Amino acid sequence: MSGTGEPARERELRERAAALDGADRLAAKRKEFVLDEVTYLDGNSLGALPVNVEARVADVVTREWGRMRIRSWEESGWWTAPERVGERIAPLLGAGPGQVVVADSTSVNVFKAVVAAVRMARAEGPGERDEVVVDATTFPTDGYIAESAARLTGCRVVPAAPADVPGVLGPRTAAVLLNHADYHSGRLHDLPGLTAAVHAAGARVVWDLCHTAGALPVGLDEHGVDLAVGCTYKYLNGGPGAPAYLYVRRELQPRFDSPLPGWNSHADPFGMRRDYEPAGDAVRGRVGTPDILSLLALEAALDVWDGVSLHDVRAKSLALTDFFLECVAAYAPAGRVTSVTPAAHAERGSQIALRCPDAREVMERLVAAGVVGDFRAPDVLRFGFTPLYVSFADTERAARVLGRVLGGSGELTPGDGAAT
Amino acid sequence: MSGTGEPARERELRERAAALDGADRLAAKRKEFVLDEVTYLDGNSLGALPVNVEARVADVVTREWGRMRIRSWEESGWWTAPERVGERIAPLLGAGPGQVVVADSTSVNVFKAVVAAVRMARAEGPGERDEVVVDATTFPTDGYIAESAARLTGCRVVPAAPADVPGVLGPRTAAVLLNHADYHSGRLHDLPGLTAAVHAAGARVVWDLCHTAGALPVGLDEHGVDLAVGCTYKYLNGGPGAPAYLYVRRELQPRFDSPLPGWNSHADPFGMRRDYEPAGDAVRGRVGTPDILSLLALEAALDVWDGVSLHDVRAKSLALTDFFLECVAAYAPAGRVTSVTPAAHAERGSQIALRCPDAREVMERLVAAGVVGDFRAPDVLRFGFTPLYVSFADTERAARVLGRVLGGSGELTPGDGAAT
Repeated sequence: MSGTGEPARERELRERAAALDGADRLAAKRKEFVLDEVTYLDGNSLGALPVNVEARVADVVTREWGRMRIRSWEESGWWTAPERVGERIAPLLGAGPGQVVVADSTSVNVFKAVVAAVRMARAEGPGERDEVVVDATTFPTDGYIAESAARLTGCRVVPAAPADVPGVLGPRTAAVLLNHADYHSGRLHDLPGLTAAVHAAGARVVWDLCHTAGALPVGLDEHGVDLAVGCTYKYLNGGPGAPAYLYVRRELQPRFDSPLPGWNSHADPFGMRRDYEPAGDAVRGRVGTPDILSLLALEAALDVWDGVSLHDVRAKSLALTDFFLECVAAYAPAGRVTSVTPAAHAERGSQIALRCPDAREVMERLVAAGVVGDFRAPDVLRFGFTPLYVSFADTERAARVLGRVLGGSGELTPGDGAAT
Repeated sequence: MSGTGEPARERELRERAAALDGADRLAAKRKEFVLDEVTYLDGNSLGALPVNVEARVADVVTREWGRMRIRSWEESGWWTAPERVGERIAPLLGAGPGQVVVADSTSVNVFKAVVAAVRMARAEGPGERDEVVVDATTFPTDGYIAESAARLTGCRVVPAAPADVPGVLGPRTAAVLLNHADYHSGRLHDLPGLTAAVHAAGARVVWDLCHTAGALPVGLDEHGVDLAVGCTYKYLNGGPGAPAYLYVRRELQPRFDSPLPGWNSHADPFGMRRDYEPAGDAVRGRVGTPDILSLLALEAALDVWDGVSLHDVRAKSLALTDFFLECVAAYAPAGRVTSVTPAAHAERGSQIALRCPDAREVMERLVAAGVVGDFRAPDVLRFGFTPLYVSFADTERAARVLGRVLGGSGELTPGDGAAT
């Protein structure tokens, strides 16, 4: 990438940004978030605070816990919140009702899903099916947890880059764990095609949607996905460590044999029965008592999706990332950074990852200048584009400040990253 | 139990309650909780709201999430909160530093602990060690999870009442999962004696402290307990579904081989390394991203323990439960209820469980009259005595209203259960 950063080019890009913001069908959503002078491009790590969460959390603490206390488990709907919030997330995943439950962390849900997938595939046969194929480029926790699930079920892990997965599938494959978008490069993988390939091998697939849910249409039902997991604190803005979700396709639910059969997943949880009998639907993905504060903060955060079309979200996401790449090319000194995110729309999630040798220092200087992305070892700058609240003006500004940090033309002054 | 409920007897009991409250060394703690006209004896299910939690949660949402956003993982101490809050809980468990971490639900921690205990015992040998002994009277989730842990590690479950555990231990025993106090009857089990018996058999013990931590001294280090788990929303007042804790005795930590090795338990979590290398201490009990809202609410809730002696807590707990039994005997019609909680102090936790055939209806009427306990199928009324905020006046009043609900002397009028 190269750029000269002449004033005329800057003026043109700023005018383009203004025009794009003026035509943005999602522009009104921005006011539903708490934002300030910071240019926040780290919503792919922690989504910004939706305005209505503050009052809702205060009400949960003060009234529901403080005044109603134990009665709230029933009267405030706490007990059923994991399913209820799951129903709110389902449309964002392309999932019909009764298939999504919110509980535990993504890692714990990966464990449930991979063990359950292995058990399903084995029950379906034929053969031994003792291999778990895992995305070798995966966010590490998925790999660690898959390794544990494999060990406990007598399988071995077969690592493979997503593009190589079809080549390693076979009669021994039990389960395949894949990321819809890579956390590092932002590359989007072929969910429909890989799902079909796994099914053709007689195995079951688990998709990790952490970096796509809320950023683009996923289409779980449409593409026949078996199981999926994801976090809620990135593009779903649920707050730090908000509980994750688990999708189990409806017809597989009777065969979902959880390795974590806690009392919340029992058909009659208050019967306090000694024998375990799993609930008949997505509820069997629950384990223990749900963390109500985080869960109800997430529920309130999901209000921002009312009336939002995921096709508009995807269109804006691609426009933002295209525009960012164009601005970086204009502002950054030649050869200073290289995009590791694919240029092809079909292979791009909602983040741009730029490689440069001094990425750690560059990100520190960017943050100090008011542009917040993040650094991922060893040499990547990540910028997340959350279409509900990132504007084209933010995007141009971030690239311009980055250009200066990287040594392009123009002085870097404190406050350069500040929205005006 | 029987009682006549004469006015003179009532006067005498009310005067005794006032005198006991006057001499209560913990009486000042009550004002640190949000309480109202309800007589709340359900803190063994959901602890009352500590006053300072409201402001702390608002600050976490508005400033730490809303303004600082991603920076809070480091600058607000979010990342290290599971260990930091663990250190706050440790003294309440009789645990020295570096052995307690707060994460996930109790059920998930039971799974980690039982699998890890089986692996430890097997590594230590001799022999096969393929049995997991489980309290047959346990809260069901412990049994379900232990069954799953046994299945995944090639063990079988041996159910036994706690008193019968020594008789079933042997060279095949790998792990033993026990409750310190029974959720139903309130019976306290012999933690030191049973721990020693398990060790004599060469096995490892996991204690579930849900119904004792915060209500009485536990003495984990003193008694050489291997592993322990418990919730934080009962006597620790952490809020609905607040995350649970896991204790791993220091010298066992290098051998704690977690079945849920998520990235948060890695020695270098942000190294994003493909190979798993567990952290060296209690951190290896973590899994995925901690639920910050619930965790920091819990942290604030633990402030109420400043300056509190657990010996005072235990003394008051026993005095409250003794007094409650005396008042129930005075107020309830003869034979109408039977205590299933042991009379002996050494066998009593901090709740009283009364059996009566129409327990469900009795509890509904009690709650309507402003006395909140809970019902556990099929026929038990549970009353929890949380020494930091339950008074002797509450205790006398609850028994008096119960007596009227059960058909004892005196008219039951709305508001009878209200504190005056």
